Amino acid sequence: MEAVGSLASGDPQPPGTAEGTAPIDRSGKEAASEGSSVGFVLVHAGAGYHSESKAKEYKQVCKKACQKAIEKLQAGALAVDVVTAALVELEDSPFTNAGMGSNLNLSGDIECDASTMDGKSLNFGAVGALRGIKNPILVANKLLSEAQKGKLSAGRIPPCFLVGKGAYKWAVDHGIVPCPPDVMATKFSLSAFRKNRRKLELAEKVETEMIQTKKRREVSENTNVTASLDTVGAVVVDHEGNVAAAVSSGGLAMKHPGRVGQAAVYGCGCWAENTSGSNVYSTAVSTSGCGEHLIRTMLARECSVALQSEDAHQALLETMQKKFVRSPFLAHEDSVLGGVIVLRCCRCSLESESSLNTRALL
Amino acid sequence: MEAVGSLASGDPQPPGTAEGTAPIDRSGKEAASEGSSVGFVLVHAGAGYHSESKAKEYKQVCKKACQKAIEKLQAGALAVDVVTAALVELEDSPFTNAGMGSNLNLSGDIECDASTMDGKSLNFGAVGALRGIKNPILVANKLLSEAQKGKLSAGRIPPCFLVGKGAYKWAVDHGIVPCPPDVMATKFSLSAFRKNRRKLELAEKVETEMIQTKKRREVSENTNVTASLDTVGAVVVDHEGNVAAAVSSGGLAMKHPGRVGQAAVYGCGCWAENTSGSNVYSTAVSTSGCGEHLIRTMLARECSVALQSEDAHQALLETMQKKFVRSPFLAHEDSVLGGVIVLRCCRCSLESESSLNTRALL
Repeated sequence: MEAVGSLASGDPQPPGTAEGTAPIDRSGKEAASEGSSVGFVLVHAGAGYHSESKAKEYKQVCKKACQKAIEKLQAGALAVDVVTAALVELEDSPFTNAGMGSNLNLSGDIECDASTMDGKSLNFGAVGALRGIKNPILVANKLLSEAQKGKLSAGRIPPCFLVGKGAYKWAVDHGIVPCPPDVMATKFSLSAFRKNRRKLELAEKVETEMIQTKKRREVSENTNVTASLDTVGAVVVDHEGNVAAAVSSGGLAMKHPGRVGQAAVYGCGCWAENTSGSNVYSTAVSTSGCGEHLIRTMLARECSVALQSEDAHQALLETMQKKFVRSPFLAHEDSVLGGVIVLRCCRCSLESESSLNTRALL
Repeated sequence: MEAVGSLASGDPQPPGTAEGTAPIDRSGKEAASEGSSVGFVLVHAGAGYHSESKAKEYKQVCKKACQKAIEKLQAGALAVDVVTAALVELEDSPFTNAGMGSNLNLSGDIECDASTMDGKSLNFGAVGALRGIKNPILVANKLLSEAQKGKLSAGRIPPCFLVGKGAYKWAVDHGIVPCPPDVMATKFSLSAFRKNRRKLELAEKVETEMIQTKKRREVSENTNVTASLDTVGAVVVDHEGNVAAAVSSGGLAMKHPGRVGQAAVYGCGCWAENTSGSNVYSTAVSTSGCGEHLIRTMLARECSVALQSEDAHQALLETMQKKFVRSPFLAHEDSVLGGVIVLRCCRCSLESESSLNTRALL
């Protein structure tokens, strides 16, 4: 067995800082075995304003996630389990805003969202505002696979979406090992929290003064909470041509406890659909950016629809413009932020086309 | 000022019990003031298998919700606030599975989901797995209206979806009065819980025996938990022609704690869109039924798309057949259950068309 890796869309781009763009640090790898392709994986470490100084770490974690996924593909695993394996690596990195080292919320706690979709069964599993679990994607994957077993005792329908304490309890009851919350916070995420808390206190002081002069909400950009949006995601096609997608996020820094972003919402965080009667292509999508914007535009599913067009690149460009950047659903937002990784392959081959111009789309 | 009420879609239908259908007890009323129409409201008390003995109560609560909404319309309120007023009445009834008297979950607790969408601003607010709040729809409405005020302090994006304890805390911080959990459980919901718990114990005992003979999950229908799915919902058009939709649910009986159903998920529980460049009609939709089925088919939004067709009735029929009953997303389900109420009105008038054949669609 030999693993051959090739980048799908040129070199992984370094994290960008240009305003108005949502750079995604991403890596794509094709796995081959004895000359024949056994699949393809594309991962990303998030849209957002990354520090150039961490470019190396982002590239390393993306590469590691691809390697883990390729090992799984070569061992014959199905797409939905491969994509989970990639996500576990991304969540375990302290540099991403998912799992370990996630953004802390207003109360100083880590609450994670994650979901996964299997293009073969079209099943979906998601968790929201989940505390005390190092790898939320494992819970989402478990929800998906448990639902495939059919009804629960007494004819009850198995859940596809669990949140909060109930999700935690379900995870532990299903053999997922809990993690003490203080272990999940890293030196970096704690330091960012303390900095953001100071900014928030300052901003609220300034705004209190402004309310008296009726200038509320016109605060200096410098007092804004740092937008650390590096949600992670992956899309995979396996040796059978099945696709799967997954997404995981610690959510916005200083979010309200209980806030759920796109990473847990059906059609918004990820999407995967194998070819079918009406779908010429198998498609898989994972999104990153501001959760509220991605929810209200259902961006993952919209991109999947666009990928069915003959000229997918043009259709994606139009979708990102008309259904995201200029979406009537976001007409009142002063800025929108989001990015996607996408993958499609046709009925008869594993030929995959990754999103070549994610950067240019935004 | 004079209130004139007329039924939109014939007499409200009595709760049905026929197998394979998902009857919806619904009422529609048009509100007029001094000869000119000031709006229209359509409410329902849920898809599911209702008891004929409670037909009178269901009709009464639907009528009361319509009356409350009409009062609001006549006072000049906007659709999004009118639909909330209707939902509060429906939630307050001990006969519906929303707010007071909701289904109890596996742990014997009440956890509610609710959401609302404003067709004018296209804003959305939702809560999931919320305990200790009598009217979850008030929290969803408050999330929607707070988001319309723009960013929070320090440039933070306001949440549109909160769950669990965080949602409870946000609600109380925003002036919504909490309700002791034991007050929300009614004699009827507690009795149903005890009955369901006994069924569950029996089913698990039988299944444990069956596992030994490898016949798991092939249990008699008689041991199934009673499917009390009477989620409530409403759709409204106001005097300006704005539409709004809302939905509220206590979720499936004996659901796992933390389980979130379609009533809290964007595009799945409710949908509302005013006319716009691409939309000839304003549309509003509210769904009821099995949450997992309604999530995975995004039924609210699909129905809204269908309503843009010239022949809306035919398009809705096709949508319910192709995108719900025979949806590839539900191909592995042995039965699917769902219903919708819909409303559309054209650009130049308040002429509204309610879903005349919800019953026939299913």
